[in-house]
Amino acid sequence: MEAPEAGGAIRSPPCAPTRPGRGGMELRPDPPGAGAIHSFKSQKTIGKHKKHFKMLLMFKYTPLPYSDVRITDPFWGERQRVNHEKSLPKQHEMCERTGRFEALKLQWKPGDENRPHHFWDSDTAKWLEAACYACRIRDDADLRGKIDRVAELFEKAQQPDGYLNSYFTQIDTDRRWKNLRFNHELYCAGHIFEAAVAHHELTGSDSLLRVACRFADYIGSVFGTEEGKIPGYCGHEEIELALVRLYQATGQSRHLELASYFVEQRGRQPLWFKLEQEGVIPPDFQGHGFVDDYVQAHVPVREQQEVCGHAVRAVYLYCALADVAREKKDPTLFAAAERLWSNLTECKLYVTGGIGSSWVGEAFSTKYDLPNERAYCETCASVGLIFWAHRMLQHSGDPAYADVLERALYNGALAGMSLDGESFFYQNPLASFGGHNRQDWFECSCCPSNLSRLLATLGSHIYSESADEWLVHLYIGSEARFGSGGRIRQSGGSPWDGHVEFEIDPAAGREIGLGFRIPSWCGAHEVLVNGAGVDAVEDRGYIRLRRAWRSGDRVSLRFEMPVIALAGNPRLMGNSGQIALQRGPFVYCIEDADFAGSVLGVRVSPAQKFDARFDTDLLGGVTVIEGRAVADANSPDTLYHRWGPAAGTGTRFRAIPYFAWNNRSRGAMRVWIPIAPEQ
Amino acid sequence: MEAPEAGGAIRSPPCAPTRPGRGGMELRPDPPGAGAIHSFKSQKTIGKHKKHFKMLLMFKYTPLPYSDVRITDPFWGERQRVNHEKSLPKQHEMCERTGRFEALKLQWKPGDENRPHHFWDSDTAKWLEAACYACRIRDDADLRGKIDRVAELFEKAQQPDGYLNSYFTQIDTDRRWKNLRFNHELYCAGHIFEAAVAHHELTGSDSLLRVACRFADYIGSVFGTEEGKIPGYCGHEEIELALVRLYQATGQSRHLELASYFVEQRGRQPLWFKLEQEGVIPPDFQGHGFVDDYVQAHVPVREQQEVCGHAVRAVYLYCALADVAREKKDPTLFAAAERLWSNLTECKLYVTGGIGSSWVGEAFSTKYDLPNERAYCETCASVGLIFWAHRMLQHSGDPAYADVLERALYNGALAGMSLDGESFFYQNPLASFGGHNRQDWFECSCCPSNLSRLLATLGSHIYSESADEWLVHLYIGSEARFGSGGRIRQSGGSPWDGHVEFEIDPAAGREIGLGFRIPSWCGAHEVLVNGAGVDAVEDRGYIRLRRAWRSGDRVSLRFEMPVIALAGNPRLMGNSGQIALQRGPFVYCIEDADFAGSVLGVRVSPAQKFDARFDTDLLGGVTVIEGRAVADANSPDTLYHRWGPAAGTGTRFRAIPYFAWNNRSRGAMRVWIPIAPEQ
Repeated sequence: MEAPEAGGAIRSPPCAPTRPGRGGMELRPDPPGAGAIHSFKSQKTIGKHKKHFKMLLMFKYTPLPYSDVRITDPFWGERQRVNHEKSLPKQHEMCERTGRFEALKLQWKPGDENRPHHFWDSDTAKWLEAACYACRIRDDADLRGKIDRVAELFEKAQQPDGYLNSYFTQIDTDRRWKNLRFNHELYCAGHIFEAAVAHHELTGSDSLLRVACRFADYIGSVFGTEEGKIPGYCGHEEIELALVRLYQATGQSRHLELASYFVEQRGRQPLWFKLEQEGVIPPDFQGHGFVDDYVQAHVPVREQQEVCGHAVRAVYLYCALADVAREKKDPTLFAAAERLWSNLTECKLYVTGGIGSSWVGEAFSTKYDLPNERAYCETCASVGLIFWAHRMLQHSGDPAYADVLERALYNGALAGMSLDGESFFYQNPLASFGGHNRQDWFECSCCPSNLSRLLATLGSHIYSESADEWLVHLYIGSEARFGSGGRIRQSGGSPWDGHVEFEIDPAAGREIGLGFRIPSWCGAHEVLVNGAGVDAVEDRGYIRLRRAWRSGDRVSLRFEMPVIALAGNPRLMGNSGQIALQRGPFVYCIEDADFAGSVLGVRVSPAQKFDARFDTDLLGGVTVIEGRAVADANSPDTLYHRWGPAAGTGTRFRAIPYFAWNNRSRGAMRVWIPIAPEQ
Repeated sequence: MEAPEAGGAIRSPPCAPTRPGRGGMELRPDPPGAGAIHSFKSQKTIGKHKKHFKMLLMFKYTPLPYSDVRITDPFWGERQRVNHEKSLPKQHEMCERTGRFEALKLQWKPGDENRPHHFWDSDTAKWLEAACYACRIRDDADLRGKIDRVAELFEKAQQPDGYLNSYFTQIDTDRRWKNLRFNHELYCAGHIFEAAVAHHELTGSDSLLRVACRFADYIGSVFGTEEGKIPGYCGHEEIELALVRLYQATGQSRHLELASYFVEQRGRQPLWFKLEQEGVIPPDFQGHGFVDDYVQAHVPVREQQEVCGHAVRAVYLYCALADVAREKKDPTLFAAAERLWSNLTECKLYVTGGIGSSWVGEAFSTKYDLPNERAYCETCASVGLIFWAHRMLQHSGDPAYADVLERALYNGALAGMSLDGESFFYQNPLASFGGHNRQDWFECSCCPSNLSRLLATLGSHIYSESADEWLVHLYIGSEARFGSGGRIRQSGGSPWDGHVEFEIDPAAGREIGLGFRIPSWCGAHEVLVNGAGVDAVEDRGYIRLRRAWRSGDRVSLRFEMPVIALAGNPRLMGNSGQIALQRGPFVYCIEDADFAGSVLGVRVSPAQKFDARFDTDLLGGVTVIEGRAVADANSPDTLYHRWGPAAGTGTRFRAIPYFAWNNRSRGAMRVWIPIAPEQ
């Protein structure tokens, strides 16, 4: 490993002592026999030991920095390679071609092409941030050159007073801070801060970090509740979590205080957005639910009970809640994040880990309104959910957060990028008639670089540590270096089988606990230490082993990975009479490419024994699920027809992991499959 | 019968010679045996005789005026009674209480309560129109008194130049015709015209009709493509069909020409709404899809291919297309209406006859986007669909239009009013968690009076006549007087059984054809004439009998009325794995009031033999459908859980007609029921 010693990105030490809701998923299959260690029942013991659990885990864990975890996993290594070699160059090219870089030169004149947009700097900054991460885990002279040039563009675009926004510096120059609800200036600032931290971590240079700090200090001079300041906040959250990162990178508490101001001021009376001059909202965005709860500013964050509004804004805010709660050791603020988490996972989360079901405003809808082909599920929203879950996980040590993190990572987020890394989904519906296909860029192109920064920092999601314990949350082949100097090497067949090997190299001979998350998808599981079965302690969702490890000690895990047929809560009316298939962390779908006809007429009996088979040649190598199905030979033309017991002919079906759909041909796809009668 | 001789309301002589699409429903059950006369197969012969069919039927039929049809049916008679005795007084009271009548006195001042709204006159006019119809079919001194007072309010509110709108005459007086897209002035005018025609038909007085004609003439002096006129049209269609009614009532062709102008000008380049001053659209309505196709003004109506935008506006326009096409003998304009009908019934029509699925803008969505609990289905939209279907039916003689008319009438529209006639649905979702309940009024209260005018004029939907044929479209007990002076008395057990009796009283001994529509829901059917079986000719969807009828001749029809389990087109993904139950014209639902637990966990096997039983004491007397079901004893709390074959316990279920839901208690309801495995 080649990681420098700088503070890790996305480092999120836990803080507050409350217990989160377990979340709305209960996917663990029934135990196959009396020998099963892990079952529904054992999960329930968590509730009984609630208080004990809280006391044990509060403030305990810190994630390993992504730079201290080298991913060796064939599946995720390939995703990181493609991200590095294809996606980042592609995004750089698109930023160049669309004028996003040029905009930072502040030389645009009316009549020129590529008129800058007020959120373009966020795309540029997010590319820069992602490129820095990618370069740090695998150095690359060409990418470093691009990074230097883009960083310099930002440095030169900063105004004497510290302000930095390429749009409002050269266009609408009299509109600075005039429309916080819509204009994304503070949102863009946040992404510049995050890029600056990443740049500093990569290069050791303070040049861009100084720009960020000057900008942050200028913002601090403008915003606040003090006389003469604007008591406002941004319509699109992001600066809050970014300021915490700036604080973590610099140790300057004023950045944390400003983050705390933005979090706490939000939704306080009198509502800032009500005070903003009327008529500043562009017509196209009026009516798009663009009211206070659309931007999570209807009541103070501590009083918010329900995830609402624009999904990406929401999860960025919730990340900041967790961050500020942790840094300020404020359990009541964290409790607000827990309440929102429970609401999300109990009634607004897709089985793919997608969130934000509504096309109107890219937003959360009402409870249990999770349509499939009309699911919005912005890629950025799943990425943001992963960020949020990651913070909640460190804070609480509760594997329920890791379950959702894994679900969003392997499905809702990963689907956002094609296998070749060069095209992207902005929306991730759970069904399509064939009209939804990946694109190489978007007018609002937030998603590609968000995926890129997630993939480059994936290492930080796998392990956490405390003074006396190492936790493994995700089963991704990797070499990790812990703070104490100890190391773990993880290998095995994940994500396609549940056999995982760990080689332990403790820094010293001292006793340390190892905790391995028991995934929600596994059946029975088995633990071997140096080849011999052991009576592992299953405690709070982790297999826990404590001993004085010796260098070369091996832990082997065998997680059963059955095909699971999932049903939806009866309140998900659009899923009634349908199942979704899952195996391991992957949710599956069926798509036209695997059928002679259309997937729209396919029905599957959930009671059958499904076959799972790894196909090396398919979609870069995936495990497919196969089985018996019934298909309508002649799909009716009419909207409604008489139900018939004998309709459909027997056939076989093949399901592929959801993330890999739309990589072969354009066609219909669905995750939720109607149930066929028993055959 | 007590009908005067004035021209009938909603009289819609057919005109153009084209054949409509059959519509997207094919609900006829399989024939139970070889004896079945009517089957899927026989339906298909219509297509083979397409040309012949067109030639035979073009321009042929005219509906009987509602005033020439006295409804004696226990079911519909009760609905008319409740409408007369409860709904109309209730609406009158609410118009009074909310200041809608007061507004017409033009004395509102800032600071007064009940500030008038720009579409209030439409509510008042529609109440007046409905009250006139109701009074005409059953005179009522009290109602006449109210009618006189409201008519006088309108008469006195008219301005010297003919303009009439209580809002723009006393508030925003400088905004007359300044915002056609939004301000509903022409829409309100249309409702005043319709009320004036109804008032004239009831009273014989010209007082309000003269007001309407003066207003129409003033509008004609303002709008048009001639130099100095406004080449615009209303954002909410209605005036088009109303001007045709004014033409029919007065014989003045300038009203027809103005209707034609409004229909044809719509969507022509340059688009009027693009020309309107920017910024006139109130912020609340911007972004609500409030673009040109939202108001069906994106391309000329003759080029429109897909039903789109606000559903009520859309169907009002399509009514006018049919009206103008008929009056101007323009088959190409009618062909546009046929295309739009096909599009509607092939991919945008709920099984309840509800239309306009989207809560955003009360609008049509994309093809096959028909969510259930999030269905908007405005009551007015189903009412407007009935108006449109009624016109198309007269024009073509195609029973497919009557099928949809009947579906919307008995389900989507009728559900809009409580059994006691005093509360109303604005939206008619096909499923509810229990939070959707009827209200006694709405801020935008278009629906109650729309239902009232439909119920009062229901008689006009039952029969049509031509020179040598009488058609029966709906099986509703009634006494009808045909233009020739002949009469039919219809009686029987409809809508709860399929036994219908007709007593014929021909005006003279001449030969006349009788045509009885074969409903889409019937199984086998049988025809008796004076008690003896006959070989009835089934022709173009009607049982046709031709002879020199004698007074007292009886025709008896026996339509099998099986319980039909309907399945949705596979593209209706939210209905996959679910069925809807229908019997006769009624679509059924299950609601919490009939279950110990919640309907949300109930599943039903569609292969069973369902029981249909008339329950005199339930909901005013309805036939319920009963059978075996599976119910989840403990509904899972989680969003997703493992599917289990043994889940649920056997139980019985009871389904009630959809129109009658939410009349006992608040609770969950669903039309589409998940399929249970065979038991």
